[in-house]
Amino acid sequence: MSTNVEHFDHWVRSTFAELNTQLEEHYFAQDDRARVAGVGEDLKARLKAEGNEHIARLLAEGNTDEGFDAGFDLLGNVGLFMAACARHGAADQHAKDGGLPEASALALQLGASLGVTPRFATSHLTTHNRAVEGRYKSFTTLRDEYLFTDYNTRGILSYKRAGDALLRVLPLGVSHPVAADLLRAARDALGAVVVSNERLFAELDMDRFFYSVRPYFKPHRVGQHVYRGANAGDFAGINVIDMLLGLCRADHAYYSQLLVDKFLYMMPEDQVILRDCMRRRSLMDDFLALDEDERRREPCRENLALFLELCELHGQTAAQHHDQLVAKFIEEPAQHMDQEHHDKLTASGPPLPVLLRALARLRDLRQAADRDDIPSRYADIRKLRESLR
Amino acid sequence: MSTNVEHFDHWVRSTFAELNTQLEEHYFAQDDRARVAGVGEDLKARLKAEGNEHIARLLAEGNTDEGFDAGFDLLGNVGLFMAACARHGAADQHAKDGGLPEASALALQLGASLGVTPRFATSHLTTHNRAVEGRYKSFTTLRDEYLFTDYNTRGILSYKRAGDALLRVLPLGVSHPVAADLLRAARDALGAVVVSNERLFAELDMDRFFYSVRPYFKPHRVGQHVYRGANAGDFAGINVIDMLLGLCRADHAYYSQLLVDKFLYMMPEDQVILRDCMRRRSLMDDFLALDEDERRREPCRENLALFLELCELHGQTAAQHHDQLVAKFIEEPAQHMDQEHHDKLTASGPPLPVLLRALARLRDLRQAADRDDIPSRYADIRKLRESLR
Amino acid sequence: MSTNVEHFDHWVRSTFAELNTQLEEHYFAQDDRARVAGVGEDLKARLKAEGNEHIARLLAEGNTDEGFDAGFDLLGNVGLFMAACARHGAADQHAKDGGLPEASALALQLGASLGVTPRFATSHLTTHNRAVEGRYKSFTTLRDEYLFTDYNTRGILSYKRAGDALLRVLPLGVSHPVAADLLRAARDALGAVVVSNERLFAELDMDRFFYSVRPYFKPHRVGQHVYRGANAGDFAGINVIDMLLGLCRADHAYYSQLLVDKFLYMMPEDQVILRDCMRRRSLMDDFLALDEDERRREPCRENLALFLELCELHGQTAAQHHDQLVAKFIEEPAQHMDQEHHDKLTASGPPLPVLLRALARLRDLRQAADRDDIPSRYADIRKLRESLR
Amino acid sequence: MSTNVEHFDHWVRSTFAELNTQLEEHYFAQDDRARVAGVGEDLKARLKAEGNEHIARLLAEGNTDEGFDAGFDLLGNVGLFMAACARHGAADQHAKDGGLPEASALALQLGASLGVTPRFATSHLTTHNRAVEGRYKSFTTLRDEYLFTDYNTRGILSYKRAGDALLRVLPLGVSHPVAADLLRAARDALGAVVVSNERLFAELDMDRFFYSVRPYFKPHRVGQHVYRGANAGDFAGINVIDMLLGLCRADHAYYSQLLVDKFLYMMPEDQVILRDCMRRRSLMDDFLALDEDERRREPCRENLALFLELCELHGQTAAQHHDQLVAKFIEEPAQHMDQEHHDKLTASGPPLPVLLRALARLRDLRQAADRDDIPSRYADIRKLRESLR
Ligand code: HEM
Ligand code: HEM
Repeated sequence: MSTNVEHFDHWVRSTFAELNTQLEEHYFAQDDRARVAGVGEDLKARLKAEGNEHIARLLAEGNTDEGFDAGFDLLGNVGLFMAACARHGAADQHAKDGGLPEASALALQLGASLGVTPRFATSHLTTHNRAVEGRYKSFTTLRDEYLFTDYNTRGILSYKRAGDALLRVLPLGVSHPVAADLLRAARDALGAVVVSNERLFAELDMDRFFYSVRPYFKPHRVGQHVYRGANAGDFAGINVIDMLLGLCRADHAYYSQLLVDKFLYMMPEDQVILRDCMRRRSLMDDFLALDEDERRREPCRENLALFLELCELHGQTAAQHHDQLVAKFIEEPAQHMDQEHHDKLTASGPPLPVLLRALARLRDLRQAADRDDIPSRYADIRKLRESLR
Repeated sequence: MSTNVEHFDHWVRSTFAELNTQLEEHYFAQDDRARVAGVGEDLKARLKAEGNEHIARLLAEGNTDEGFDAGFDLLGNVGLFMAACARHGAADQHAKDGGLPEASALALQLGASLGVTPRFATSHLTTHNRAVEGRYKSFTTLRDEYLFTDYNTRGILSYKRAGDALLRVLPLGVSHPVAADLLRAARDALGAVVVSNERLFAELDMDRFFYSVRPYFKPHRVGQHVYRGANAGDFAGINVIDMLLGLCRADHAYYSQLLVDKFLYMMPEDQVILRDCMRRRSLMDDFLALDEDERRREPCRENLALFLELCELHGQTAAQHHDQLVAKFIEEPAQHMDQEHHDKLTASGPPLPVLLRALARLRDLRQAADRDDIPSRYADIRKLRESLR
Repeated sequence: MSTNVEHFDHWVRSTFAELNTQLEEHYFAQDDRARVAGVGEDLKARLKAEGNEHIARLLAEGNTDEGFDAGFDLLGNVGLFMAACARHGAADQHAKDGGLPEASALALQLGASLGVTPRFATSHLTTHNRAVEGRYKSFTTLRDEYLFTDYNTRGILSYKRAGDALLRVLPLGVSHPVAADLLRAARDALGAVVVSNERLFAELDMDRFFYSVRPYFKPHRVGQHVYRGANAGDFAGINVIDMLLGLCRADHAYYSQLLVDKFLYMMPEDQVILRDCMRRRSLMDDFLALDEDERRREPCRENLALFLELCELHGQTAAQHHDQLVAKFIEEPAQHMDQEHHDKLTASGPPLPVLLRALARLRDLRQAADRDDIPSRYADIRKLRESLR
Repeated sequence: MSTNVEHFDHWVRSTFAELNTQLEEHYFAQDDRARVAGVGEDLKARLKAEGNEHIARLLAEGNTDEGFDAGFDLLGNVGLFMAACARHGAADQHAKDGGLPEASALALQLGASLGVTPRFATSHLTTHNRAVEGRYKSFTTLRDEYLFTDYNTRGILSYKRAGDALLRVLPLGVSHPVAADLLRAARDALGAVVVSNERLFAELDMDRFFYSVRPYFKPHRVGQHVYRGANAGDFAGINVIDMLLGLCRADHAYYSQLLVDKFLYMMPEDQVILRDCMRRRSLMDDFLALDEDERRREPCRENLALFLELCELHGQTAAQHHDQLVAKFIEEPAQHMDQEHHDKLTASGPPLPVLLRALARLRDLRQAADRDDIPSRYADIRKLRESLR
């Protein structure tokens, strides 16, 4: 790590987080907590000036090429800085480089050379966020940001564990006697998601999250384009589960559109996993391809029972996400927010009702809901359930 | 290759090209050659219906997973079809799936699983366009489309050859006695680009190209997004040359923006090459890092002379491209075209004058022009030239 | 899958396994169970002739290139056949192609094009052994072969799970609050290895394993070289654990020799994981790099406690392997075996005492034993333990 | 680059080469130029001691992980040192670590983590041998070593160029109008091999090469294994040409054995190219699959003519290699050498006559010679020639 990179990292882990925290306290103390303009302008100016200075030094120093990990980490730091400037209205989102020309230049170069979006991604804050003396990087030092990040990280890691296990079932086939071990591992992992979602739901403060954390996860501009915000779904595992269980299918435009849109928000290794997964046959289709008798015979029968349990659990986590997390931490507070701020509500950009409809559809696919207007596997799941009678 | 894939390929190579050709003849016979609406509507309907039928069969058949090459080829066929529909106004560009829901679905799935843009790319028509009985795939059977494709392919292959040679200089260093062989190979390759550009300039018919070929290379919609048109620069080699010669630099926002925007239009192997190249030091910087004495000593001196010759030639091909090809085949005919059609003029989307300014800037960088407003290497090239005195 | 490939696969799953089983029953019924020569020669002849016929048809058909998975599966089938011929003495191990020229040719081509050893590997029988109607491929249909394979597969999958979790700790660092989740997942996975080893130890029949299963896992010749036998350690996970815990180190010749020798016996994806892992710093070194105070502070302290528990468990599985499995199923029966057969005892080739010494050393490294003659981490583990006081 | 790495590199480029040169002068001044034992023992001791010291420092410093290029370069330096010790008899080839335990340890770790043989490979001296002030790394500073390396490098780079061009013909097909450009590029590149072979033949001094250069290219021990010497064929391009022209085939055991044995002697990127190439259909088979009429029609006819010219040229370079280079620089001087030294004659290990027979077979395949005992394409080439009548 060059000295400049180190200094910048240190700044992000200290001054940067402190300035953001102070700003959040100012905003939150107002009647209209969503108001940002004109508040703490000196703090914002300092944030922007110091960040820019660090970045200018890095640009001047030039490419030091220390491998993917170092580059990705640096992109994360630049990205946190840009997102914070956007959150505070400290950078002009209408200028072609988002009002941060040096940061844009560095982010574009890093993103292009790493094969990812030129902004901070979820993994920068969660799975690839190195702790120093017990503290990982964050925008603020608010309890609720830590809570949110902790449980996002837990959810992601558990989903990944489930995805890994399912990928390993593929070469064994659904009637393999040891497949049950893997399906059980996947089940336990999804169970961990359920628990972690519940805790998040219970512990996170609605207003603090909505007014002081979420705003950092909005779309912002880098160079000529606006990039949507990071969200906890930007890793391959969740879609691996969707597709290997067979609940969602890559040959439906709706779902492949979703995949297309998230590829560059994932780590390159996740991109590879997801691509490979897209060409596989789902376990559901494997079970359906057997005849009734085979499905009823051990060890296939046990595997099928575990498979159906997994589908159930996957549906459950989707319902939690939508009916609890999204409802409580976004939908509800949004209703109390002044109409004037509504345009900046979502991480992906579309208006809230559109986003909510999309998320509801995803939930229903994952639950194999009894719906005709989407390619739900309701009937297939019923058919498989019969075999267990 | 599944039978359905084969039938579709055969259709693209026959009926598809004939229908497009007939439509072009109709358009071209009009006073306002740019008019498309209301012309040959029966032909367009047939084109759209037949293509959709092929694609519906492919979607129904599902993923047959025959490896990258087969998938990429199929994406090309779907892409040619979508581009032709867009060109003829036969598909509603305002519908969320561009009026071709099945084609969109297939293209999105293929693009996502292959790691490329979900539309036809330049390589589908040039470097990866298999000839059957002497004929490769094309939109029409017009002489000028073949001319255009032939010379595009030649130009691309020559640039690639030059890029390969430069990449192989890197591990040898600029003072290696055998580097001269590689620099000469690069020089010959760039010389071939000059020749092929000249022939294209001389042989291509301005109007035929402008009215009957170019319109297939416009942006069009796939799923929720509009994708810019393919252009002959969508391969890594040209940027490898830019960056290894040192004439363009990945740490300038302008240039990295350009790279960011083209990654998914290139084959995955080209993406890898380009990424790797972004972290290398240019030969120009290598020469500059030596002291005057070293540069004057053999074999470095000979390498430097060849290097400067290469820069010269690279600038020359850029000038040909801008001052001859773009000027004659786009700028000029655009002036004669009715104002009403001007909005659809460019392949990348921006208005023509904006595009022309960007291309001029690129030309000037490649020529190391004496300009202060862009990071031209004018002064550095002069300095290196001194060493040969 | 071409028809010929399918027929061959079917043969391996039926006749092949039956013939081997009959032969094993003949051998086992003798006083000298290790005697093979002159027993069941008609069965051996049939085995060899039928296998050769299948393979000749495949060679004649030529390369059908259906991707890695299909090629790897075919290599497994050729490899099982070659290993069985070697086990029965049905192929001349002194001929330059091991007496099976067609099988050698096919295996060499497949191995080279896939990037793996041209023989069957452990993954062919365990993690990548597709079950059809509840049955995966095996040499024989003997209960003890199934037992052995089942528990090998379980052990491998659990080790992999532990390895995955440790790899994910790396980007978080040892003081990350969520690292504990991953360390717990690793602990549970190693716990599963302990359980599965215990069951294998309890359930496997010593003689049946030694005389009827193990002989298929000997070195044999393919083309010009003799390749060592497959063993349950031919996957990356076990070494990932060794190195990330810090108990074994890639910069010690003894250990890197072991890695060098196993690379081509692993799946390519495992090779990549192992290579990447070799350049990482171990968690043990990360903990040691902190100062005493930091180690005592939460959440680092909890992570350290879990880490030490993991080291303990890893040592325990190593001890089980050596002191129970190897002792009972190889060392002991070997003592009862006629001296004349001793030359063919081990899978890797060296004489049994040499092999046992090597395995004991590995066990002691994994247990961080108090030994000076090997680079054991005994002292470092003690030091870390102090921090928990 | 760490300081220790830098110092070692500097030592290899200076003292190391000087000591080797002095030793060679001593040997060469003797009546029996092949005698090594007892000559210049002080120089050998110094060489070994200084090299070992550098390496011990590197081992102590531990893994600094600076990416593939840096690691590969360091492996080259360690490898040159080990090869020189072996050449001078300064390291005990019967000890399990070749008498150089530290160097073995470092080489094994580097080789394993890079995915290559743990010794110096041809690319370390040729295509990946960075020149500093006009000088690349070499064992000695003898004119004939430079000559040999220069022309090896030239030959390799030209073969690579030819291979690249042929690979690019594949997606176009043999009847593509632009394929001729690529075939011409390949032809020019093979022409360059012919020229460079001729010069090498004319300029290289037989005795100097045989007695003072070649001995560094012998098999030697690293860790537990003896690794064959590097040879100029250890890159993918030559086999790409063999297989794409169709003159050699990966499904013949003889040829795939050769490929298997060379994989780890090539750079990883070359391994990938070669693997991919093994699953392709050759251009020869593509031409043969067309019917007579199609072959006679343009542009196929022109491509065929160029293809046959290429086969001719490829045969010619093979003949040059065998009948000129091998004959003059190895076979002939070997006859004058004392019988006692004959055991150490070849780079790959087998006795000279065996090696020569293998090389003759390769030459005959490449020349499509009229031989029945090897799978020569003699008849197929004749058939294709007919189509040009
Ligand atoms: C306060 C808690 C959370 C809220 C309010 C929330 C909200 C949202 C929203 C609004 C989106 C849509 C993003 C967009 O397109 O704009 C989303 C996506 C997503 N979130 Fe959450 N989320 C929360 C926690 C989590 C957690 C803990 C996980 C577990 C890993 C998770 C997993 C996902 C996934 C996988 C997606 C992508 C869409 C999908 O595949 O379902 N979220 N989230
Ligand atoms: C009957 C049961 C088993 C016996 C007799 C046995 C015996 C052996 C022997 C003799 C070797 C050395 C191979 C050689 O170099 O020749 C070996 C290696 C190995 N075995 Fe087993 N094994 C058994 C079960 C297992 C199981 C269930 C696992 C769990 C995955 C396992 C994991 C390993 C590993 C990882 C190695 C490589 C050396 C190392 O890293 O420790 N073995 N085994």
